[in-house]
Amino acid sequence: MTKPCIICCAITGSLPTKANNPAVPITVEEQIESTHEAFEAGATIVHAHVRNDDQTPSSDPEKFARLQEGLLKHCPGMIIQFSTGGRSGAGTTRGAMLPLKPDMASLSVGSNNFPTRVYENPPDLVDWLASEMMTYGIKPEIEAFDLSHIIKAKDMMDKGQLKAPPYVQFVMGVKNAMPADRDVFDYYIHTVKRLFGDDAPWCAAGIGAQQIVINEWAVSSGGHART
Amino acid sequence: MTKPCIICCAITGSLPTKANNPAVPITVEEQIESTHEAFEAGATIVHAHVRNDDQTPSSDPEKFARLQEGLLKHCPGMIIQFSTGGRSGAGTTRGAMLPLKPDMASLSVGSNNFPTRVYENPPDLVDWLASEMMTYGIKPEIEAFDLSHIIKAKDMMDKGQLKAPPYVQFVMGVKNAMPADRDVFDYYIHTVKRLFGDDAPWCAAGIGAQQIVINEWAVSSGGHART
Ligand SMILES: [Zn+2]
Ligand SMILES: [Zn+2]
Ligand SMILES: [Zn+2]
Ligand SMILES: [Zn+2]
Repeated sequence: MTKPCIICCAITGSLPTKANNPAVPITVEEQIESTHEAFEAGATIVHAHVRNDDQTPSSDPEKFARLQEGLLKHCPGMIIQFSTGGRSGAGTTRGAMLPLKPDMASLSVGSNNFPTRVYENPPDLVDWLASEMMTYGIKPEIEAFDLSHIIKAKDMMDKGQLKAPPYVQFVMGVKNAMPADRDVFDYYIHTVKRLFGDDAPWCAAGIGAQQIVINEWAVSSGGHART
Repeated sequence: MTKPCIICCAITGSLPTKANNPAVPITVEEQIESTHEAFEAGATIVHAHVRNDDQTPSSDPEKFARLQEGLLKHCPGMIIQFSTGGRSGAGTTRGAMLPLKPDMASLSVGSNNFPTRVYENPPDLVDWLASEMMTYGIKPEIEAFDLSHIIKAKDMMDKGQLKAPPYVQFVMGVKNAMPADRDVFDYYIHTVKRLFGDDAPWCAAGIGAQQIVINEWAVSSGGHART
């Protein structure tokens, strides 16, 4: 008897444009059709960013609302996860779509470096995003860019800021943050089990060229995968 | 045969004032006498911040120069380490004292959260500080506030930005960064040995109430200690 693997499909991300890959869905209509294809192919969760007309990242709640409406119609039963990541806005604008009550939302609980800048998640913003998610009944996906982020999730759970067990995603392959390191990957799993119990769920995402590597490690180790 | 333990004394730190503890040395003259006492008591390294007259953190190179001059006279042979930490200034002012060529300087190689804010060490500043230390023949002490910082040190060593092996300090007990977690502490040691060899040096600092705990763990595990 094996445990099913949940596949989360990140259809758009925050940065790539049609210049990088003509298949990247940018408009809400393109995103709905792209998600529909992923849903038919077996994806259970869609991780969604929205874009402005010039393809730059957006956190416009109206766009998220139209996306949600289309996904509920075309992909019934699919789990909808909105990104609250920091590339699409600053401060509380990052959580402006949470009143739409998506099933899930991404939640960064610490700060770290990105390839050319600091990925800033100040403590008061983290607290606010978590409380908004609690208010609207949204399950957070904890984005662990480093080890302390997993441990911070435990602290937040103990303080009642997150429901137990948290759903932790290991993010690897980001330059100047955590690379795709197998020894660390295994220690991340050990840490999730130590803090949240042997049956606690976890998933993993590899960035860029590391995606397929991390998918393999995750699936073969009993985790869930982001594609 | 046991390995000697190097004791590094952080005489002043960046935040505590005489209101917190009347014994905190603030003026350069107080710092020199405080370091002298630590030197007589067996400390090998002094980790130094300087302060403005109102006790707030400073990165004034003139103050560092007077401190260095006094320490060379009163504590001959002691290793002088200047802080380039982010509480005393922003951007390149953090490294303005490096042309004084202290023996060592602290170097943060990633970003993380502090109790109420983001501790920002953007990639270009990290690169610049490391290159200044290389230029002036200064040994960096890598401040590892999280696991990825140790791995970043390996990357910088491989790229020639740091001399091998780096001298890594585990910093634990900072709220919203890494707590004093024994399992993580042991994994940090494992990671240093894996990346830099079994004989690579490392040290550890506990913040506030965790200081004595971390000192015990470090000394009993073959590391060096910051007091
Ligand atoms: Zn995303
Ligand atoms: Zn459709
Ligand atoms: Zn310091
Ligand atoms: Zn003296």
